[in-house]
Amino acid sequence: MTLLILDLFGTFVFALSGAMVGVQRRLDIFGVFVLAFAAGNAGGVLRDLLLGSVPPLAIADWRYLGVSVLAGVLVFYKYHFVDRLRSAVLIFDGAGLALFSVNGTLKALQLGLGPVPAAILGMLSGVGGGVLRDVLSNETPAILRGDFYATAALIGAVVVVIGHGLSFPQEIVALAGASACFGLRLSAVRRGWKLPLAGNKGPSN
Amino acid sequence: MTLLILDLFGTFVFALSGAMVGVQRRLDIFGVFVLAFAAGNAGGVLRDLLLGSVPPLAIADWRYLGVSVLAGVLVFYKYHFVDRLRSAVLIFDGAGLALFSVNGTLKALQLGLGPVPAAILGMLSGVGGGVLRDVLSNETPAILRGDFYATAALIGAVVVVIGHGLSFPQEIVALAGASACFGLRLSAVRRGWKLPLAGNKGPSN
Amino acid sequence: MTLLILDLFGTFVFALSGAMVGVQRRLDIFGVFVLAFAAGNAGGVLRDLLLGSVPPLAIADWRYLGVSVLAGVLVFYKYHFVDRLRSAVLIFDGAGLALFSVNGTLKALQLGLGPVPAAILGMLSGVGGGVLRDVLSNETPAILRGDFYATAALIGAVVVVIGHGLSFPQEIVALAGASACFGLRLSAVRRGWKLPLAGNKGPSN
Repeated sequence: MTLLILDLFGTFVFALSGAMVGVQRRLDIFGVFVLAFAAGNAGGVLRDLLLGSVPPLAIADWRYLGVSVLAGVLVFYKYHFVDRLRSAVLIFDGAGLALFSVNGTLKALQLGLGPVPAAILGMLSGVGGGVLRDVLSNETPAILRGDFYATAALIGAVVVVIGHGLSFPQEIVALAGASACFGLRLSAVRRGWKLPLAGNKGPSN
Repeated sequence: MTLLILDLFGTFVFALSGAMVGVQRRLDIFGVFVLAFAAGNAGGVLRDLLLGSVPPLAIADWRYLGVSVLAGVLVFYKYHFVDRLRSAVLIFDGAGLALFSVNGTLKALQLGLGPVPAAILGMLSGVGGGVLRDVLSNETPAILRGDFYATAALIGAVVVVIGHGLSFPQEIVALAGASACFGLRLSAVRRGWKLPLAGNKGPSN
Repeated sequence: MTLLILDLFGTFVFALSGAMVGVQRRLDIFGVFVLAFAAGNAGGVLRDLLLGSVPPLAIADWRYLGVSVLAGVLVFYKYHFVDRLRSAVLIFDGAGLALFSVNGTLKALQLGLGPVPAAILGMLSGVGGGVLRDVLSNETPAILRGDFYATAALIGAVVVVIGHGLSFPQEIVALAGASACFGLRLSAVRRGWKLPLAGNKGPSN
């Protein structure tokens, strides 16, 4: 139950981020829906494909399409309202990243994967939606733009793996993992934290 | 049997569209084959992966490679002839869209998926080839350029779902779905039908 | 055992190529890791998904992550050293192409696929890492730039299929296939071999 709610909520916020990118790029209403659906569901589809759980929930359960369309409609008709939230794309994208990383890790652990595979799978599930959104709209994927994107997803996943290993309650584990990921990602962007570039650092032989 | 013929024909026309984009971008003969194969088979591979039907038909059955190579050879050596058909890429792409949407929906229904999952799967199968072709050749995916691309695929899929629900014969259902998708897509492009853009329409709070 | 070593070595060299592209594009250290992981593992993940062997080895076995991170660290801190090898990206990419083509073909044959499906699967496995690396970093995929990229992968795969059909020892077959692919690819680039372009050749009706 927790997993389903996390999943639908993650789909919704990722779909909001996709729809906003669509409106910013002047796509028509169906283009906006397409980006909303792609951003909202790519991570979950990737997770389910990698786990061999087919057809993926995002296709088998109509509610995933439902929340994606809802996000598209909201953004399309209320764009100026949604946009009033400063850096809305960033926040929705960060929330989706956090929710899918946690969720993917939990689902992988439940299906019996070990800690390292579960964390990798959670990270991939977290970044999948943003990667497809950015590749489809011909932007440099957020995952490569630095600012602790995949790092944050991985840290959220690791928190979940550790909490699960210590047998903490799933709700607490999910909350801690998502907070770690979301907090790290947004702090990094807000405060301009940067990871080192090659050449700036390191003796280079 | 119907499914196989639809599938091979869809592969062939999508492969023609991919090969033509390859020639237009001045790729060498193997680049043309690559785009032909990618455009012709991505939708079917995606469909089979999402349905858990592995290895995908496009890999397990050599005829899919055969028709892709045939399309590549035809376009490569007879480009000026094929190009004489006005807007050939558009027509072949539209035909592939229609055939794969219908086909993906039918296969999903046969494997027992419900109406909404089957329609989503059909739509994804329809748009997959064009998306990979456009992402590989660094163009904005047709799916985002408006002109009723994914909309047409979805409508074709919905026609199939309804016809199947009413127990109409499969050939009729497939023909009706494909005609709806192809007709809508081509009419939209020819007559310049546009879906609304955000901001042009809607009170925006 | 042979397969595992080939696979890890292929992952390592592809990851080197990904990491070097990341450094060239001035990504931060985690961006470099992301491209290293993507280039190193996309081909194997694609292969395992298409074969229905989930979760893919690249996720289930921590050593794949390990060699990817190792490649990222090496390139990040020793870039000037690695770069001193002339055309290092090209060589590592060619080696990855050869190893994954051979490996994908062998794994497909072991799982009972016929010769044509096995060769197609090997080719796709070979080119997958380079395609994802190039799509993520917004470059025209090497697979479309000519110079016998997919051709070399396919020829390596065909050598393996033939050798396997003649019941030669697996080590010999793997070595022959990889040498054919790597040799052809590097010779083509070094000597500027080009496949024909449409229009330059062929009577065109």
